[in-house]
Amino acid sequence: MTASIFTDIPKQLSEELSQTLLKTPNIRIERILSAGQASPVDFWYDQEQAEWVMLLQGQARLSFADTESVELNPGDYLLLPPHCKHRVDWTTPHQVSIWLAVHIESEPFTEALNAAGD
Amino acid sequence: MTASIFTDIPKQLSEELSQTLLKTPNIRIERILSAGQASPVDFWYDQEQAEWVMLLQGQARLSFADTESVELNPGDYLLLPPHCKHRVDWTTPHQVSIWLAVHIESEPFTEALNAAGD
Repeated sequence: MTASIFTDIPKQLSEELSQTLLKTPNIRIERILSAGQASPVDFWYDQEQAEWVMLLQGQARLSFADTESVELNPGDYLLLPPHCKHRVDWTTPHQVSIWLAVHIESEPFTEALNAAGD
Repeated sequence: MTASIFTDIPKQLSEELSQTLLKTPNIRIERILSAGQASPVDFWYDQEQAEWVMLLQGQARLSFADTESVELNPGDYLLLPPHCKHRVDWTTPHQVSIWLAVHIESEPFTEALNAAGD
């Protein structure tokens, strides 16, 4: 009935690995594993969906097209609004970095942001 | 831009504390802090919404009306479907237990469960 976010880590991670933990019509919760990987230089994630992300293990740096980069340690979280261009600039090579990502359908999300700004 | 799930813990927690980290029309992400608190005996949470929950710090035990109780350590997560009657049976008195809870609107969620069962 329960599972652990910290177990079943593959020994070899030649590339970043995303695993869906829960999927509903409106959200998708996933675990992302990075073993020193970073996004390609000049590549930007530009997602339709908002993404709420927390680092659970390891260390990472996210960079953005429109603002300063951020360093993440375990327990650090942030919201990436739809079309917030970002890339994974760096993850520690010393340990597998474990991310929890909650992808949120953008339409109701954008409505909520607009309503909050009224 | 970032925040940490492990900081800004009140020194005194006379009761369980829930703090909303993100709210959209379809989901609500919250941090729940327990300092040894448990649900009242014979009380059951019986929620309209599904809840995906992970323990991030501390130790806890959840019990259920219809199945065996589970012990949770940091990193352990589980899904509580709508109307899954549960209670917090115990949390460690030695440390603040920190939970991450994702509350998910039940209607699309139930549709997804039904579709998955087709």
